[in-house]
Amino acid sequence: MKIVIVGGVAAGTSAAAKASREMEDAEIVILEKDQDISYAGCGLPYYISGVIPERDQLIANYPEEFSEKYGVEVKTGHEVTSLNLDDHRVEYKNLSDNTAGSEDFDRLILATGASPIIPPIPGIDLDNIFTLRRVNDADRIKKTVQSSRPERVTIVGAGLIGLEMAESFAELDMEVTLVEQQEHVLPLIPDELSEKLEDHLRDQEVELVLNDGVSHFSGGEKVREVVTESGRKLATDLVLNSIGISPDTELAAEAGIELGVSDAIRVNTAMETNRENVYACGDCAETVNLVTGKKAWVPLGSTANKQGRTAGTNAAGGEAEHYGVLKTGITKVFDFTVAATGIQVEEAAKAGYDPVPITVKVPNHAGYYPGFEPFSLRGVFDRTSGRLLGAAAVGRDGVDKRIDVLASAIYAGQTADDLFQMDLGYAPPYSTPKDPVAVLGMVAKKKVE
Amino acid sequence: MKIVIVGGVAAGTSAAAKASREMEDAEIVILEKDQDISYAGCGLPYYISGVIPERDQLIANYPEEFSEKYGVEVKTGHEVTSLNLDDHRVEYKNLSDNTAGSEDFDRLILATGASPIIPPIPGIDLDNIFTLRRVNDADRIKKTVQSSRPERVTIVGAGLIGLEMAESFAELDMEVTLVEQQEHVLPLIPDELSEKLEDHLRDQEVELVLNDGVSHFSGGEKVREVVTESGRKLATDLVLNSIGISPDTELAAEAGIELGVSDAIRVNTAMETNRENVYACGDCAETVNLVTGKKAWVPLGSTANKQGRTAGTNAAGGEAEHYGVLKTGITKVFDFTVAATGIQVEEAAKAGYDPVPITVKVPNHAGYYPGFEPFSLRGVFDRTSGRLLGAAAVGRDGVDKRIDVLASAIYAGQTADDLFQMDLGYAPPYSTPKDPVAVLGMVAKKKVE
Repeated sequence: MKIVIVGGVAAGTSAAAKASREMEDAEIVILEKDQDISYAGCGLPYYISGVIPERDQLIANYPEEFSEKYGVEVKTGHEVTSLNLDDHRVEYKNLSDNTAGSEDFDRLILATGASPIIPPIPGIDLDNIFTLRRVNDADRIKKTVQSSRPERVTIVGAGLIGLEMAESFAELDMEVTLVEQQEHVLPLIPDELSEKLEDHLRDQEVELVLNDGVSHFSGGEKVREVVTESGRKLATDLVLNSIGISPDTELAAEAGIELGVSDAIRVNTAMETNRENVYACGDCAETVNLVTGKKAWVPLGSTANKQGRTAGTNAAGGEAEHYGVLKTGITKVFDFTVAATGIQVEEAAKAGYDPVPITVKVPNHAGYYPGFEPFSLRGVFDRTSGRLLGAAAVGRDGVDKRIDVLASAIYAGQTADDLFQMDLGYAPPYSTPKDPVAVLGMVAKKKVE
Repeated sequence: MKIVIVGGVAAGTSAAAKASREMEDAEIVILEKDQDISYAGCGLPYYISGVIPERDQLIANYPEEFSEKYGVEVKTGHEVTSLNLDDHRVEYKNLSDNTAGSEDFDRLILATGASPIIPPIPGIDLDNIFTLRRVNDADRIKKTVQSSRPERVTIVGAGLIGLEMAESFAELDMEVTLVEQQEHVLPLIPDELSEKLEDHLRDQEVELVLNDGVSHFSGGEKVREVVTESGRKLATDLVLNSIGISPDTELAAEAGIELGVSDAIRVNTAMETNRENVYACGDCAETVNLVTGKKAWVPLGSTANKQGRTAGTNAAGGEAEHYGVLKTGITKVFDFTVAATGIQVEEAAKAGYDPVPITVKVPNHAGYYPGFEPFSLRGVFDRTSGRLLGAAAVGRDGVDKRIDVLASAIYAGQTADDLFQMDLGYAPPYSTPKDPVAVLGMVAKKKVE
């Protein structure tokens, strides 16, 4: 049994590790076009800011280590050029010497990931315009920051990466401007919470340019100015383009593998594609929104790990499933934690629910205990069933715990009453006698009844 | 409609507040023998240590405030002496002038609470031997600490209060000795976790005397020595007796109200006792263990609030239920958080499950992010169904979140596989791509399959 895995970051290495444990004598080969595998993509903003001082800390396993630990052959600098599924063969180019080669397989796992979207904006090719996805990207940004000491940075796109990088650049004493085409930052949370986050960003001296896109970048060799669609001119020394990512699925599509939402590879809960013996996992693959039951593309590190593990198990003859996701996302933005899970009002209405949004201002813990901080917690409930469909929260402390508890509750199909009933831990440093989750449930119960 | 409530701390005031909102024109009277109502019992250790500087901060509502806010008559210093259920009358003694009186009622809510158990040990009446339950107790301890500057304190009983007070006394620069009759501290968590907590207590220079009870206290007027059953002599300037509490249900029993587990008042999920129009809630009342379905007595502040709310709603003509508890408990002990929920191995076996305990050492968040701390997480699963029955954890960070997520999962009847599937939030400051809850699920799934 020979298993070939294309891509060696979160999903690819999870798949390889699990496959090697599942079937000890399987021959497993990872083909990765970059030099790095198994790195912590989510840690890159903290490496750039210096919060994580050493590049080494981001690398979970170097290729040789990984190879030794799991008995897996790791071929870095190998770019796959085509998938010949009928012949069970993958063609590649060895980037170190530009030679071609191939690997036969019994089972193929595609973990090709996703890449930043480069918008076709005039001036996008100027120097000092970056994207941030791989360790090399972080290296490049870090080097530029160290060598040319940019004073002003413009971040285009206020999603998770854009917001995390706003903090990172601010930590490096740069003046940060955040440009977002939508009316509010972080579209994954409801507007009323985005506004609180925007206040916090402004408190941290981040300039926000909302409801405005980039018309063009100008400068000589290097970018010097960002001109927005509304005509604003933002002097800048560095630009981070973080408008989004798209799945790397051209190879799969060319090979006749079915694509789905956002051109991610269509998979079932076993991570099987429409082609026999071919699996896909991680940021290149689809998943299911567990609240709506609809197919979705939600590229996140935690999902990549689980899908990789599932694909690896099944490719090696075991049995595993990954049912889907709640789109749970969380991020630290300066002193705030922002998180969301499940579906929000608009998506709920589209899915046929009668959504009732409830927002409560709740304490992280007992008011008399040091470190007291209220935060905003919002739940979306279905009026008919009382079921919790989604939640979001913004604040300085206590956010991550409640969002995870609510994610667990959404996963289990719990109602407003269940949030009141479930018995959460109370002591003054951790909560209040009526936990924020219970308060949300109590208020919601009255509204949906 | 006149509702009389006996007891005005957590459950009694919750009941009164909810009843007044449920039925605005109801006449509501609280009879409380102490002067304080509506105070934060769980905050007392932090008031004694000075972490909470002002007594005022512990009082959620003073009687006049509460009275005004909710339109409730609050009679403090009124000790109820008998319940005349057939005549719908409560007899009381006004402690300020020693006069007797009575209140008629249509509905009666008993929220009489619980009191510290005073063991019949020789010398127990010596000065400087305290219990800690009410604000007055805290006042007395604080005054003694301030006036006589005790250097050595002995705490008898290493439950939640005993452990919290070990920290408080240590913060006041006292030498702390903790005497526990059981083999390990904090019987609510499994031995292997108690041992980690014991190591931490010893690191904080708390002397542990385990597997040993108190034979007698000696001294002149004041206690000077604790002599243990094994013959150890512990020189001491102050003793805290924290061996446990028992429900205050003598009045109820005399009135023919049925008692249950540990002599707590038997109630159904509507908080109704066996006598019509009589409700009970809080530390004097029974509840149900939601995992085993068996009646239980679990006196905790969060439960008292919920039961009070439920009793208040129903007494005022509304409809509410409190289904029961998971016995979720949490406490801060110096730099450690210790928590447990659901049932542990022994109780699971008794309840007819085939319990499989799984302990994992897991990270609070990404290893490369500042503040990384591994902690110990233990789950108890049913071999037959894979269902999570209980959990416990000990460590410096990340404990409270995972125990609450697991409490939510136990409440919902989730399995080891569900712990893997549920989509918890991941970003480096908050978790790892495989959250500790998912790791526990993954390891458990292999063991129970």
